[in-house]
Amino acid sequence: MQEIERLIQLLARLPGLGPRSARRAALELVKKRESLMRPLATALSEAADKVAPCSVCGNLDTTDPCRICTDETRDARTICVVEQVGDLWALERASGFTGRYHVLGGTLSALDGIGPEDLTIGQLLARVGPDRPTAEIILATNLTVDGQTTAHYITERLEGAGVKVTRLAHGVPVGGELDYLDDGTLSAALKARQAL
Amino acid sequence: MQEIERLIQLLARLPGLGPRSARRAALELVKKRESLMRPLATALSEAADKVAPCSVCGNLDTTDPCRICTDETRDARTICVVEQVGDLWALERASGFTGRYHVLGGTLSALDGIGPEDLTIGQLLARVGPDRPTAEIILATNLTVDGQTTAHYITERLEGAGVKVTRLAHGVPVGGELDYLDDGTLSAALKARQAL
Repeated sequence: MQEIERLIQLLARLPGLGPRSARRAALELVKKRESLMRPLATALSEAADKVAPCSVCGNLDTTDPCRICTDETRDARTICVVEQVGDLWALERASGFTGRYHVLGGTLSALDGIGPEDLTIGQLLARVGPDRPTAEIILATNLTVDGQTTAHYITERLEGAGVKVTRLAHGVPVGGELDYLDDGTLSAALKARQAL
Repeated sequence: MQEIERLIQLLARLPGLGPRSARRAALELVKKRESLMRPLATALSEAADKVAPCSVCGNLDTTDPCRICTDETRDARTICVVEQVGDLWALERASGFTGRYHVLGGTLSALDGIGPEDLTIGQLLARVGPDRPTAEIILATNLTVDGQTTAHYITERLEGAGVKVTRLAHGVPVGGELDYLDDGTLSAALKARQAL
């Protein structure tokens, strides 16, 4: 049973799986040995070998620079700054954004002792400058205290760099019902109201 | 990105993980490449190579017969019949049961077209008989319609085999509050009340 116990322990360390669901997952894997268990083992070791952060933007890819940074059809003048690779993926799935990205790797946090040197803010500033093509930085950090602190800090550091700094619009989610919205979102939506 | 997409698709097929949590899990795996991703790949392929169902009882193990079936300190005269390997694991974790097991591999189900020949009922009957040591069969199938039908069917097939057939006690869970219990459990607990 040692092999199964070890597998369950490792599965239980995945976010979203606890000890009980890890056991269920292990049983499912043994049942689907050829169709799921072996392919997953292969996919894991291949990804572990090949996938690495892009040295320009921090995206995860098998090439460096990544496919987005080397895609000539994408606008190198517009950089969207996100906290995590997952945010980049979400924007890619949804938005039709055709610029490039910069992954910070987190947010500034006094509580957790995370300062600017722990994030890729230096690399971001290096991508901006009179001799660089960047014209607009879109700040897409989360609307948390830390996310906003980080956006603020970056805005200050970019002052005088001759680059336009924007942030994502905040307001009522599409399909959202006012009754169920938190007060912060409602008041942000009211403040940012637009003429029809 | 192809390697990551494939990894996410495979992770999303695990019970308990949807597309969104599979993405989170993939990101976590890439972050913990050496401490989690590679060990998990190894554990998966090792388990895929070595773990197989026991030909006697259906338990999963790296030896055949499994460690429980070959453990001479366990009572071969008592067999606890469960639906799935997960049920066997739950009993092993909790119960201090010192007999052996038999995993049916599911339940009879008219709706799903699962008959006795799709389960290991034949193998169970082969473990019972005048020349075999089995003295008691404990039916530990679930208290669902299908589980009870299966228990009933096995009881009938065992008639005249000279073996005692019992089932798990049903009643109020330890630590359970009456107010939150379903009617079926409450009425079962009342029917099976015991003298103090």
